[in-house]
Amino acid sequence: MNIKAEFPIGVFDSGIGGLTVVHALQQILPHENIIYFGDTARVPYGTKSPQVVREYARDDAEFLIKQNVKMIVIACNTVSAVALDVVQNISRIPVVGVIIPGAKLAVASTKNKKIGIIGTTGTILSKAYENAIRQNEKDILSFGKACPLFVPLVEEGLINHKATELLAKEYLFPLIAKKIDTLILGCTHYPLLKNILREVTNNEINLIDSGEAAAKEVFEVLKKENLLNKSRLKARLQFFVSDSPEKFTAIGEKFLGTSLGRVKKVSITSH
Amino acid sequence: MNIKAEFPIGVFDSGIGGLTVVHALQQILPHENIIYFGDTARVPYGTKSPQVVREYARDDAEFLIKQNVKMIVIACNTVSAVALDVVQNISRIPVVGVIIPGAKLAVASTKNKKIGIIGTTGTILSKAYENAIRQNEKDILSFGKACPLFVPLVEEGLINHKATELLAKEYLFPLIAKKIDTLILGCTHYPLLKNILREVTNNEINLIDSGEAAAKEVFEVLKKENLLNKSRLKARLQFFVSDSPEKFTAIGEKFLGTSLGRVKKVSITSH
Repeated sequence: MNIKAEFPIGVFDSGIGGLTVVHALQQILPHENIIYFGDTARVPYGTKSPQVVREYARDDAEFLIKQNVKMIVIACNTVSAVALDVVQNISRIPVVGVIIPGAKLAVASTKNKKIGIIGTTGTILSKAYENAIRQNEKDILSFGKACPLFVPLVEEGLINHKATELLAKEYLFPLIAKKIDTLILGCTHYPLLKNILREVTNNEINLIDSGEAAAKEVFEVLKKENLLNKSRLKARLQFFVSDSPEKFTAIGEKFLGTSLGRVKKVSITSH
Repeated sequence: MNIKAEFPIGVFDSGIGGLTVVHALQQILPHENIIYFGDTARVPYGTKSPQVVREYARDDAEFLIKQNVKMIVIACNTVSAVALDVVQNISRIPVVGVIIPGAKLAVASTKNKKIGIIGTTGTILSKAYENAIRQNEKDILSFGKACPLFVPLVEEGLINHKATELLAKEYLFPLIAKKIDTLILGCTHYPLLKNILREVTNNEINLIDSGEAAAKEVFEVLKKENLLNKSRLKARLQFFVSDSPEKFTAIGEKFLGTSLGRVKKVSITSH
């Protein structure tokens, strides 16, 4: 089937975090229809091995392709880090991950050429951000730090909690000690922690939201490929998840900023 | 095939927590061979819906049955709470979960007839412990409290961390206010938090380890069914996981108390 500009953008994530990317897309591309898939039956991905994440990424992308999307946005840092090629190889539609746009924006932002990266264990171990930064500019120093408890803390709503602040201080201390001036939020849950992260960094470090960077990249790609939706009808948002929708619906609003409407459960089977 | 006493006991869990149950089994039944399966590719179960947990439980139990085990121990509280019947219905071998033995021991321990229960969101929402307590004795008051951050905190090794203590105080405060004298640790990760839990409860509350209670029940069932292993050879332990074994092996020692030896990755497919 030929790709058409009025087809929706497909966005997927391991769970709910990718809604921060949907929010960023809505700001830049208010007329684009979006189909979102969150693999809530197998969340999280960030603590799992690259092999398993690659299997799951293929399942997720295949689900979106069946929905006739015009492009795929990988709204999950872990998948973007370890399985971008898997998604690119199963289809000819454009694919945008969050790592490359996030790294590019960080490189453009840093003045002292010292960039910190926080993310899940999977993202940090992959060194995907470091590699993407080096491809943009060779003489930048970058420092990764896994923050494995941020995802469950955000999912439990403890975004201004003393325990979160304590852990944020511990996680960020080694990066602050390296005198970074720019910090990549390398997980789609982390934008919800901006307040605490600003406090802990004394508001002296640029926080780079990879999701926002990815949304700008999506705009550029659609423009280049002549796939921007010309329709001025109200954009249609559809949400699919692999576990029951209750929890997703309940906390999704925090991530998206508005109510989600109907969320549908679907089964996706691993190979 | 006829069940034989020398066959191994099959134990499964959503991931690594069930190793505390294996540890308890080893104390009581040092000559029993054990096959353990941890579904690390889909962990955690405790935040997921009963429907999804029931699907996963069937996969896990079917894997163990194929290994010719003589009985199945559900070392996961969430599965014991919402899918005991699923496991019982797919085979004729004995099945022991952690909920009923844990509830029984708590009922025998309480003096003031006020029991607290902590567990994952799935376990607490199911009210499985409350129902099991009521089946033992009608006039006991029981109070459940979900502690969703304990599992990731334990998995990250923060078992004596200030953040864990802070959250433990918050989680337990409403139970202490109810003047419970007995607290069921309704998740196999929680025995690793005994130090902090004792501190937070001023050492004044009985802590009931459901895994230990389940191990005693396993002994009773094997004895009754004449399935205790008579061999005095060194017991054989085999570990299988659905994601790569590295993390499981690395943190498994903390749960089991000794090294795990070889851990094998297997694929199990959902229906």
